[in-house]
Amino acid sequence: MDTELTALTIAEAGQRIRAKVLSPVDVTEAYLARMEALNPRLNAYVLPTADRARDDAKRAEAEIAGGNYRGPLHGIPIGLKDLYDTAGIRTSGGCKAYEDRVPAEDSTVARKLREAGAVLLGKLNTHELAYGTTTNNYWYGPTRNPWDTEMVPGGSSGGSGAATIASLAAGTMGTDTGGSIRIPASLCSCVGLKPTYGRVSKAGVMMMSWQLDHPGPLTRTVRDAAIMLSAVEGYDPRDACTERVGKVDYESAFTAGMEGLVVGVPRTYFFETLDEEVRSAVEAALEVFRRAGATVKHVELASFREPFAAIFNMVRTEATQFHAERMAANRDGFSPELQAILGQPPLSGLDYVAAQRAMMAYKEAVRAALEEVSVLVVPTTMAPASPIGASGVNVGGAELPHGIAYAGLTAPFNAAGVPALSLPCGFTAGGLPIGMQIVGRPFDEWTVIRAGHAYEQLTEWHKRRPALG
Amino acid sequence: MDTELTALTIAEAGQRIRAKVLSPVDVTEAYLARMEALNPRLNAYVLPTADRARDDAKRAEAEIAGGNYRGPLHGIPIGLKDLYDTAGIRTSGGCKAYEDRVPAEDSTVARKLREAGAVLLGKLNTHELAYGTTTNNYWYGPTRNPWDTEMVPGGSSGGSGAATIASLAAGTMGTDTGGSIRIPASLCSCVGLKPTYGRVSKAGVMMMSWQLDHPGPLTRTVRDAAIMLSAVEGYDPRDACTERVGKVDYESAFTAGMEGLVVGVPRTYFFETLDEEVRSAVEAALEVFRRAGATVKHVELASFREPFAAIFNMVRTEATQFHAERMAANRDGFSPELQAILGQPPLSGLDYVAAQRAMMAYKEAVRAALEEVSVLVVPTTMAPASPIGASGVNVGGAELPHGIAYAGLTAPFNAAGVPALSLPCGFTAGGLPIGMQIVGRPFDEWTVIRAGHAYEQLTEWHKRRPALG
Repeated sequence: MDTELTALTIAEAGQRIRAKVLSPVDVTEAYLARMEALNPRLNAYVLPTADRARDDAKRAEAEIAGGNYRGPLHGIPIGLKDLYDTAGIRTSGGCKAYEDRVPAEDSTVARKLREAGAVLLGKLNTHELAYGTTTNNYWYGPTRNPWDTEMVPGGSSGGSGAATIASLAAGTMGTDTGGSIRIPASLCSCVGLKPTYGRVSKAGVMMMSWQLDHPGPLTRTVRDAAIMLSAVEGYDPRDACTERVGKVDYESAFTAGMEGLVVGVPRTYFFETLDEEVRSAVEAALEVFRRAGATVKHVELASFREPFAAIFNMVRTEATQFHAERMAANRDGFSPELQAILGQPPLSGLDYVAAQRAMMAYKEAVRAALEEVSVLVVPTTMAPASPIGASGVNVGGAELPHGIAYAGLTAPFNAAGVPALSLPCGFTAGGLPIGMQIVGRPFDEWTVIRAGHAYEQLTEWHKRRPALG
Repeated sequence: MDTELTALTIAEAGQRIRAKVLSPVDVTEAYLARMEALNPRLNAYVLPTADRARDDAKRAEAEIAGGNYRGPLHGIPIGLKDLYDTAGIRTSGGCKAYEDRVPAEDSTVARKLREAGAVLLGKLNTHELAYGTTTNNYWYGPTRNPWDTEMVPGGSSGGSGAATIASLAAGTMGTDTGGSIRIPASLCSCVGLKPTYGRVSKAGVMMMSWQLDHPGPLTRTVRDAAIMLSAVEGYDPRDACTERVGKVDYESAFTAGMEGLVVGVPRTYFFETLDEEVRSAVEAALEVFRRAGATVKHVELASFREPFAAIFNMVRTEATQFHAERMAANRDGFSPELQAILGQPPLSGLDYVAAQRAMMAYKEAVRAALEEVSVLVVPTTMAPASPIGASGVNVGGAELPHGIAYAGLTAPFNAAGVPALSLPCGFTAGGLPIGMQIVGRPFDEWTVIRAGHAYEQLTEWHKRRPALG
């Protein structure tokens, strides 16, 4: 396999493509070959789209040869979680009940990536309908963690996380309702960015909860995440929740460094229940911030324990409404797990409103905490990857449900709607990745990217790759 | 009465105060005298705060004398709808069940106005808990329309509308969940601005529907609305729904004129059921736009008829949840009208989610329509003011419920969350005001203000005042 080409970051490959020293066709063929070799082991892609990829690559090559360079994603091979509508390509959300779904139109994100000249390698596995944190898909089988194929990659964007770190794509798009971008980023050692609610369009993305769904990229570096964000962000009349906020120059974030940065650490709730290796890695990361000139200080932030239950039920009520028609028509097209979840009684209208108000109150608490600091830093998951098929996650000797151990520290920032970046900050003695989150003020992705990039420059974690041959 | 001082707009009074040729104390005394003379007839204020006003005015005078001029609201007497929390001053929302509510803290809007140096004249009447369009308050009595005291001023911010046009305040703040700023603006011949959802903080404003409530100003000119908006707008950690959007220079909107403006007219739904004098006035206004160099074109926009019912029930469900505790404790503290509304069964959780989705779909339709034009122009209300106590509103010979005749053309823009300005565009033969709306893209208040000001400069409607002696 030509591992040299697939080892390039988006930024590196983009520079070479722009300089016409790297051919989009060659880099695409390298990825397709690697997918053919490794996807059977990892099951990251549920639907490779090799023909489409080759067409995209040839078009990119011709355009660039003709002097029409579109930008840093031109000719770059990427993958999309199977929740993103792709015109003419099945989009089932990992659920048999939707396997006949072949959208006529691209999601806004798919369209923007196409227009940016990206090459579509295929559709990536997800926890069924994004409703879970392991990507142990009942219909399409489990995606396997590239660092240890007996382990889960996290989810629901597990296919995206596994493909990104295994170099089966230069970058991928995931979706994040309670942590579904950041959890696989943490468990697979990727960078995963959940942008501010309203920065990236959800139009044409299969809905789980319209209030908490966030589309965003998974990449191997913070810079690559910024490149993908730039391509997909922006106001979209087709998504009522997108906001008219101006274009951001993320390039300037890469030179801003640590100096003057104020890092808030909310120890209540976020540092209470943690695997000890996760705790040590995040504490060590805070020390890196301190030494590099950032101020690290404690901030108060109310526990997410109580709002969590209400918000979880709110999400379930939304997902139940969204899937009600298919569920009525084809119950057996949903896995037993989904049938059980969506079969629970939905919230009453009054309880749903109360849950929204609990969410608003928590959102305001996060915003208040962020007034005092530039960013918050917390662990991404309470524990590293756990075995596929296990009933729960071992956190410091106790077994916690996957939804708590993996989404407990990420879901708060879906409720808050603020940008949250997960990036690698260490490995366990057993060689499993550990991630931390950098959380910013609403629409202040710039500072999150600045802090993440500055940290990345001082550490080597993001350079490690799983041994896959 | 010193009608000369109370006749000044905010901009005019502000210039004189700044130049130290007008004393905040004198202008405040002029307003207090006028309130004493006219409020018994109009019932605009439910709680005048003369002592507070005199304190505010003296402080403003001293500050300005000391060279500390705060800006265009310094020393300007204003009134607040009784939904805005005011520290130490009763805030009952026009409902007996809340008459013991004396907030410890100002709402964010009240605080910002205080910090801008405005003088608080008092708390203004509202339809009980903002739940209606006539301001015929069961506990505090009806507010009367200054143009004809047998007529309603519109609502729910009827006290704000009546006080503004009767010069019982230089400007006021209202709230708008289905039209409650724009309806009284239309029926009283004021300018009323419902800003983009998320531009002005709702923190400390008694809630009706967290998804549709919009705080905003009522004034006598578009320029004055911009001055008040500038003072109160902005991100607020205390309101999870406010957005981090930059400060806007509205001053530049006053010189931009009509040239190049593209005015969209959605005739479906918005022009179907109208009083003929309202229709003529709005058509004449469109002619003013045309002659002044704007392009006026038809745009397609789906009917609001179906989403209206779902959204109305969604709002009722939210209001029911918000008032449930007081209702359980003190049912008789709510009027029979409110008991009946909030006594209806709330939506189920699934129906509530479906209503939200209907709202999102409509929002996207409005955004799509706005992609093609600078602004939309439609009538504000289907008919002018109707008699106090009437069972409905006569629209072209048929009696329609108040909620349809008055809120039917305003509520769409609460659902859409886009900025909507109501401004005077004529009078009936009987001397009752007629208003039209100028509607803009999300967070594009600038263009709405530009178009409104340009129209205002070409007409005389905004200069008419009711004959009150």
